[in-house]
Amino acid sequence: MIGGSLAGALKKNGFSGRISALVRRNETGQQGKDLGLIDDYSTNPATLIPSADMVMLAVPMLSMHQQLQSIVDHLTATAIVTDAGSVKQPFIKDAMAVLKDMSRVVPGHPIAGREKTGVGAADANLYTDRRVLLTPLPDTAIDAIETVEQLWILAGASVECLDPGHHDRVLAATSHLPHVLAYALVDTLATQQEAEEIFRYAAGGFGDFTRIASSDPVMWRDVCLSNRDALLESIDNLEVHLRTLRFAIDSGDAKTLETTFTRAKTARDKFTG
Amino acid sequence: MIGGSLAGALKKNGFSGRISALVRRNETGQQGKDLGLIDDYSTNPATLIPSADMVMLAVPMLSMHQQLQSIVDHLTATAIVTDAGSVKQPFIKDAMAVLKDMSRVVPGHPIAGREKTGVGAADANLYTDRRVLLTPLPDTAIDAIETVEQLWILAGASVECLDPGHHDRVLAATSHLPHVLAYALVDTLATQQEAEEIFRYAAGGFGDFTRIASSDPVMWRDVCLSNRDALLESIDNLEVHLRTLRFAIDSGDAKTLETTFTRAKTARDKFTG
Repeated sequence: MIGGSLAGALKKNGFSGRISALVRRNETGQQGKDLGLIDDYSTNPATLIPSADMVMLAVPMLSMHQQLQSIVDHLTATAIVTDAGSVKQPFIKDAMAVLKDMSRVVPGHPIAGREKTGVGAADANLYTDRRVLLTPLPDTAIDAIETVEQLWILAGASVECLDPGHHDRVLAATSHLPHVLAYALVDTLATQQEAEEIFRYAAGGFGDFTRIASSDPVMWRDVCLSNRDALLESIDNLEVHLRTLRFAIDSGDAKTLETTFTRAKTARDKFTG
Repeated sequence: MIGGSLAGALKKNGFSGRISALVRRNETGQQGKDLGLIDDYSTNPATLIPSADMVMLAVPMLSMHQQLQSIVDHLTATAIVTDAGSVKQPFIKDAMAVLKDMSRVVPGHPIAGREKTGVGAADANLYTDRRVLLTPLPDTAIDAIETVEQLWILAGASVECLDPGHHDRVLAATSHLPHVLAYALVDTLATQQEAEEIFRYAAGGFGDFTRIASSDPVMWRDVCLSNRDALLESIDNLEVHLRTLRFAIDSGDAKTLETTFTRAKTARDKFTG
């Protein structure tokens, strides 16, 4: 979905280069070709990687290391390696371990996603007006950064650079924590007696609130494990605030509830628009 | 918003009766009249209530008691009293205390809402294909239940009856808990250093997930305090599940994460569609 959407966006916006997909199953590649997303595909890195000017890795976080190992022997000296992973420090660690030379590695993260997975869910407009965060290292070559930047701009996104550790802490709070919360909430309801009835009476806003709990379990398992420390800190921060609200509810503290809800509403209305 | 939307829906669908609004400020009433939602308005219960066949209370939960007191002396013997409050047992308790005779009281809860408040946010389509839950008591007159039911059906909703205590427990889990979680999450982020940057990089799905944190703080303060016991139980259930996920993340337990996420995704995809 992530890779197919990028390919579709590039094709749609007049990208003149060749787009090849390294796939696990031929059916996936053929589907991508039938949808007009890619020019060719293979299950074999040796047939695709030697002619690649750029390799985009769009696999779950814990598959990155193995994916890098499968391509490392076939990469040309000037090929750019970039990725679309949700956590940047582990990708950088994997890339350092496998590729050694980091001058052509541009870690990236498109802040866009869907609950649907697979090439059939590819959407050429997925990145339109979305943000892509690049977290280059001090030794990343400027021309490599610029090339990846141009790629995402052609796909319709805007690009910003930031520090990988900072990226992982911020995304733990704004993306990884909400996913864990949504999964926890839906699982809480689903494992209660009368789950069917509970979902039947799910109130306005519930569908929106829990939409991200329909996301790919393997991808999010990997995100949680890859960004462990920052995510644990975010969970702990949330729990402190939740305990405060719980105490206010328990003790009938109307003032704390209203103050907190008002502060949250003001922040959301201001920032999220 | 709740009352104005109902008035608008009734007008739109050919309701032939007169719709009057009891308002706190004349400006609100005039705005409702200008928008074509109501026929007349007053700030004085004595001028409106004596001619009312039905009174719909759409105020925050902790204002219900005072609202009932302001109308009780003006109600005719056959007037139906119903409400749109999110918690049913406290409304029933208030109604019993103030009205004594419960035969014309039909507690109700339209499961539809918006983050926007005020008569300007009224939407004649708010209740289209939404569910309205009525929680009548054993001594509620059948004709009163049927009249309220017809009203909501004319507004576009479907109607179901259930036990008030059961309603409050189910809604604590599916509506009140998600609101508390959304407020807690946004407040956690908003009170962190670099809040502005955090919201700036808020990832896909964050807007949906936190939309309900833009809801009316006073309304939700009252819901939390009115449904205290059921809500505390829901918060505690959620915390157990969240602690389990936290432990799995901390200990690198990939299996528990994937199993839980998959169970949640399956439940959501099945029930929420």
